[in-house]
Amino acid sequence: MRTIGAELTRIEPGTVEIELPFDPKLTQQHGLLHAGVISAALDAAGTYAAYSVIDPDASLLTIEFKVNLLSPGRGDRFLFRGEVTKPGTTIIVSDGRAYAIRPDGPAKLIASMTGTMMVVRGREGIEG
Amino acid sequence: MRTIGAELTRIEPGTVEIELPFDPKLTQQHGLLHAGVISAALDAAGTYAAYSVIDPDASLLTIEFKVNLLSPGRGDRFLFRGEVTKPGTTIIVSDGRAYAIRPDGPAKLIASMTGTMMVVRGREGIEG
Amino acid sequence: MRTIGAELTRIEPGTVEIELPFDPKLTQQHGLLHAGVISAALDAAGTYAAYSVIDPDASLLTIEFKVNLLSPGRGDRFLFRGEVTKPGTTIIVSDGRAYAIRPDGPAKLIASMTGTMMVVRGREGIEG
Amino acid sequence: MRTIGAELTRIEPGTVEIELPFDPKLTQQHGLLHAGVISAALDAAGTYAAYSVIDPDASLLTIEFKVNLLSPGRGDRFLFRGEVTKPGTTIIVSDGRAYAIRPDGPAKLIASMTGTMMVVRGREGIEG
Repeated sequence: MRTIGAELTRIEPGTVEIELPFDPKLTQQHGLLHAGVISAALDAAGTYAAYSVIDPDASLLTIEFKVNLLSPGRGDRFLFRGEVTKPGTTIIVSDGRAYAIRPDGPAKLIASMTGTMMVVRGREGIEG
Repeated sequence: MRTIGAELTRIEPGTVEIELPFDPKLTQQHGLLHAGVISAALDAAGTYAAYSVIDPDASLLTIEFKVNLLSPGRGDRFLFRGEVTKPGTTIIVSDGRAYAIRPDGPAKLIASMTGTMMVVRGREGIEG
Repeated sequence: MRTIGAELTRIEPGTVEIELPFDPKLTQQHGLLHAGVISAALDAAGTYAAYSVIDPDASLLTIEFKVNLLSPGRGDRFLFRGEVTKPGTTIIVSDGRAYAIRPDGPAKLIASMTGTMMVVRGREGIEG
Repeated sequence: MRTIGAELTRIEPGTVEIELPFDPKLTQQHGLLHAGVISAALDAAGTYAAYSVIDPDASLLTIEFKVNLLSPGRGDRFLFRGEVTKPGTTIIVSDGRAYAIRPDGPAKLIASMTGTMMVVRGREGIEG
């Protein structure tokens, strides 16, 4: 996330926000934020939100995630919010929303995500 | 895709394969291929497969995609295959599979994907 | 929905709620509401929510939907809320949440859903 | 499944097929197989396929599933095939495909599904 200029701007138990300034290097041919960047930032926000509700000695493996791209990623800045929908000792589900922020109007929802993670301890899961 | 060293190794109507050599820059802390790279390459393979079945003057907007991460991304090389499951004039669905290739054994399935795209013509969809 | 005893209890532009009383016929072997019933009711709530924001002469085709089952469906009554996340002239995305309602405690989130629909006019889409 | 006239026509380790004859009671207003029936039968095929690869004393909880509806469900008979994509001791992923079978032509793919299940032992998971 750091390599694309993203910044963690809010961390609370179960909620994390990541902000990203517009950067032409992250856009596709039409000047819109690239879908891969949107997905990666949403995934990061959802995963960090899940980390905020587990034991410090546990870690998370993403089982699956789904992204809906809703509107073109046109903005000066982008906000990615991840929220834990279902905490748990084994399975955690997070939802994420991505917004384009423009100086002249309200934030616009550009993508949504649902991710399912498994809580792992020790090297369990890494061996898979 | 090019910036991560990926190469398009097969293009047929409805099927595309992308190969990627192992590169420590693309791994996370355990030396496994990063989930974000797996997802981006699967998405690319599925999208290219869909482009292989539409008119040259049409383009595609990804509506949504879902990735299941199945096994750790440990290998010397990685293969991402995208296949069109359902061609169509308006909606196209592709499925993708990612494999880790190791010198000492069979290829291992590490991730699967389903993506839904809308066929757009002209600037339609870009305006959204 | 009527055949399983479900009732539409709230209809506003973009939001629909369906309620369902507990019925042993709708449970699986452990007395929990069957996943198929949860999914069907969530899908109905999301679809009705989308119908509440389109022209009366248009109709909707579900392109895809995803359900996460979060907690066992144990309750006296169940509430399914569908909300339009992204209205649109071609593609509409709805999200849904299912809650188990118990006399002795707060409502419990038991499932979530995201559904993508295409707006169709005339017989378009039926021919597919 | 039995209440809708479905029949298990193939069971092998990792693969299960369910067949369903056309029945006007299972159709929506245009005489097409109802999306809810397609989803439930695909989910059943995927779950049975997963049961075919686990210990007899274990059971499965569906964590999430996603269905893509690809073509109208018009046919004399319907075939639902579930296949285990990734066996595992904790998480199992199945994929499913639904086909409409018509006397006058090849089977037509009408829907696809991916489902993620957790293997549970004893009452674990039921308590959630």
